[in-house]
Amino acid sequence: MRFDIVTLFPDCFTSVLTTGLIGKALAKQIAQVHLINPRDFTTDKHRKVDDEPYGGGVGMLMKPEPIFAAVESLPALHRREVIMMSPQGQTMNQPLLRELATNYDQLVVICGHYEGVDERVLHLVDREVSLGDFILTGGEIPAMALMNGVVRLLPGTVGKVESLTAESFEEGLLDYPQYTRPAVFRGWKVPEVLLSGNHAAIYKWRYEQQITRTRLRRPDLLKSWEHKHSEHQE
Amino acid sequence: MRFDIVTLFPDCFTSVLTTGLIGKALAKQIAQVHLINPRDFTTDKHRKVDDEPYGGGVGMLMKPEPIFAAVESLPALHRREVIMMSPQGQTMNQPLLRELATNYDQLVVICGHYEGVDERVLHLVDREVSLGDFILTGGEIPAMALMNGVVRLLPGTVGKVESLTAESFEEGLLDYPQYTRPAVFRGWKVPEVLLSGNHAAIYKWRYEQQITRTRLRRPDLLKSWEHKHSEHQE
Repeated sequence: MRFDIVTLFPDCFTSVLTTGLIGKALAKQIAQVHLINPRDFTTDKHRKVDDEPYGGGVGMLMKPEPIFAAVESLPALHRREVIMMSPQGQTMNQPLLRELATNYDQLVVICGHYEGVDERVLHLVDREVSLGDFILTGGEIPAMALMNGVVRLLPGTVGKVESLTAESFEEGLLDYPQYTRPAVFRGWKVPEVLLSGNHAAIYKWRYEQQITRTRLRRPDLLKSWEHKHSEHQE
Repeated sequence: MRFDIVTLFPDCFTSVLTTGLIGKALAKQIAQVHLINPRDFTTDKHRKVDDEPYGGGVGMLMKPEPIFAAVESLPALHRREVIMMSPQGQTMNQPLLRELATNYDQLVVICGHYEGVDERVLHLVDREVSLGDFILTGGEIPAMALMNGVVRLLPGTVGKVESLTAESFEEGLLDYPQYTRPAVFRGWKVPEVLLSGNHAAIYKWRYEQQITRTRLRRPDLLKSWEHKHSEHQE
């Protein structure tokens, strides 16, 4: 998978590209990441990438020309998607990450900054993706989240396939509680069933915990899950 | 605001602490960030921070002892909140970020990693926060998002107060389209109303755009907004 990150702040990415999962995926050549700075595509003396909004308002907007020039400088692989990170986009979730990991060979990710981006940049963009219903100062951290979430789904990145399927959201439920050694820590014991060696009982307990916890914390998720579940059984 | 980030991968944070908004806030002493590695609080020869899950399953879990020792080594300011980044938590949104920025002087943020964290760590935690309904390899990028979102709300970080209130989610609607120079770019014109100088007309256009766009893209948000709006008018 090739990522092209279009950002005014490429230095932000240095650490996540050299550590952890993304660092490993780059070393194993499972992914490639290119950082492209629109400022390198300005044609004026001051290398201006932002300007004031038409119609008034505080803050600066990113100008369209440098972003167009940056994106148009990139090679286009056959299965390419151009994504803008924006609070106005579709909310990032596990099915979206899976779709991106499966269907594309190249993800161009445009990071907005300042008060926003000139609307005409959307003519370049296949889809807008939002990290969630909150405001950050730019699209850089959201782009890191998207990259991390996609890279871990690529074959060869995470050791065992089961560790991808047996977790939150892949089945539409929250995860069950997990415990490791010691069996008693400061008086808090690991639930006995987990020490029983009875796999059927463990499976049942975990499944019940998933449902109980999802009902308690995220009734919205449980509702979708029940809906999907009942369709499968028809 | 003091942040204490409890993470097995402190190097991940280097870039975001030296660039952009968080870099500036640290330089201006609006925020302080401390990185604490649970590995430094292990007592065994191998400095072991993870172990296998009781009851079976793939992947490793973070052990409770090093995390307890790391958090208990920290000073506790009067208004302190201990947060665990976890897909099981309450979904991060703008009201949550505002609450954290307003009500606390110290945020201790625990980043999970691997397959998860021993459940008993929750005895340390005031709340679990989720970045969204997707899986990343660790809580590090979610912690960066939380820090960025909180720091930009602190007095002195962002230039003008209006640039905090006049944007997406503060009012519960998506943002309106924004345009900057040039007035015509590749044949695409800036909407005429924005060039009119008629402030009332511009205000009206933007407000209508917000509602139209929110209805089209995020009917769930529009519904909550209408509900809140009708309550205010009663």
